[in-house]
Amino acid sequence: MGRVTERRRVIRIRNGVAGARADTLVAEEPLEIRLNGKPLAITMRTPGDDFALAVGFLASEGVLASASDVRAVTYCEGAAEDGTNTYNVVNVQLAAGVPVPDITLERNVYTTSSCGLCGKASLDAVRTATRFPGLGDDPVRVSARLLGELPDRLRAEQKVFDRTGALHGAGLFSAGGELIDVREDVGRHNAVDKIVGRALQAGRLPLAGSVLLVSGRASFELAQKAVMAGIPVLAAVSAPSSLAVDLALESGLTLVGFLRGGDMNIYAGEERIDLTA
Amino acid sequence: MGRVTERRRVIRIRNGVAGARADTLVAEEPLEIRLNGKPLAITMRTPGDDFALAVGFLASEGVLASASDVRAVTYCEGAAEDGTNTYNVVNVQLAAGVPVPDITLERNVYTTSSCGLCGKASLDAVRTATRFPGLGDDPVRVSARLLGELPDRLRAEQKVFDRTGALHGAGLFSAGGELIDVREDVGRHNAVDKIVGRALQAGRLPLAGSVLLVSGRASFELAQKAVMAGIPVLAAVSAPSSLAVDLALESGLTLVGFLRGGDMNIYAGEERIDLTA
Repeated sequence: MGRVTERRRVIRIRNGVAGARADTLVAEEPLEIRLNGKPLAITMRTPGDDFALAVGFLASEGVLASASDVRAVTYCEGAAEDGTNTYNVVNVQLAAGVPVPDITLERNVYTTSSCGLCGKASLDAVRTATRFPGLGDDPVRVSARLLGELPDRLRAEQKVFDRTGALHGAGLFSAGGELIDVREDVGRHNAVDKIVGRALQAGRLPLAGSVLLVSGRASFELAQKAVMAGIPVLAAVSAPSSLAVDLALESGLTLVGFLRGGDMNIYAGEERIDLTA
Repeated sequence: MGRVTERRRVIRIRNGVAGARADTLVAEEPLEIRLNGKPLAITMRTPGDDFALAVGFLASEGVLASASDVRAVTYCEGAAEDGTNTYNVVNVQLAAGVPVPDITLERNVYTTSSCGLCGKASLDAVRTATRFPGLGDDPVRVSARLLGELPDRLRAEQKVFDRTGALHGAGLFSAGGELIDVREDVGRHNAVDKIVGRALQAGRLPLAGSVLLVSGRASFELAQKAVMAGIPVLAAVSAPSSLAVDLALESGLTLVGFLRGGDMNIYAGEERIDLTA
């Protein structure tokens, strides 16, 4: 368990010449997340921070809002056929009194996405599900200059990317530029879930006044995770989708895309970006 | 429905100067896939080719192997609260005699991934599930030089990427370099499902002798989709994961990563890559 990289033999072709060598690959294994013992979701993830990933996922789904909502997180034993622990199955036991979401056959779509049947329904679901104050009330401001420096700082922290070229990164910063946390994962949703989960475990949700930077694109689901964790500013190195922008506009989330050098596009919540500094 | 891009207002900062303008974003909307009327999965996708996406997803899951397995594919009516069709819910009705997969509460993990509880189980599941001859028997060979030209050809076909910078691309080529199909989607799995679905609809599964090129990384799930569709060669512009390589080695899939210019890494099935041409 917990191996972030693995070695495999590779035939490497450079300038038409082939040679065999060992290559470092990012590890990818399935993690089954169980809630009170019932299978809820499987995600392909890079092993490590599995408990944080599980509780972060549940925070994004609106099931958890604080560490006290969790009674215990454990690896399920004997998950492999031969009885050994694969460390690929995690059970989250809710504390007494925490409502268990309705997971029925008709609602098993829950496991792939928390969104509804259409964009409008999705936005409604997020607005009603978050257990924190609305993002619109977060008065934090971030200087555009500081924001422009964050991608290089995230990149410098992506230790595994350097070896494999294969990991998505997510970094959590204070509005003053302090690096709070950074996670890498073969799945970009997982990197964010791990950050949110670690914050929940540390009693730091909602993440008011913070900036979440992701190394790739800003999809609806990443914007949703930011909103659910109370993060007021989401910045992405690449493009956002239309639904991510719609959610940001409706939720009071500041959404920045194409953050490269000092350049950027602000799609929502521009009042939080300070251009004067 | 079917809008691949949408326009949104954006504050654009270039060299410290901010200005408002309209920006083209990739459209992202949820698609609910129903099987014989029962909700099976939701995927965030770029609208378009929805029927192909649905049947391609089901082919990847081993439910469908040919067009004759499908009785009908339809948009569900009245999916929105006001009764209008969102075109975001597709139902696939199986032909008589086609086995319906066992979708129980305990198996609702089905909706996020077709893999099992651990890497080993995943590989077993794929090996047993495919309804086509093993890939190891596909004698196709591809010249390394031709392979090296494919990324530029895929990129040239990615019309929407040019406008949004936000779409994953997948291209299907013959071993001789003929472009068979190209699809773009906000989700990379979807782009491949659309290609596989269109091939299924056209009666072209299994895709023996073909090369699938993806614009990003080669994850386990993408390798799995190639195997399930009978595609013998999967090439990725970026890195593969450890589990993708394991699956390729076990399934007889040729897996190429870091395909850039004429350079590449061959992780499995190197006997299909011809270096002499």
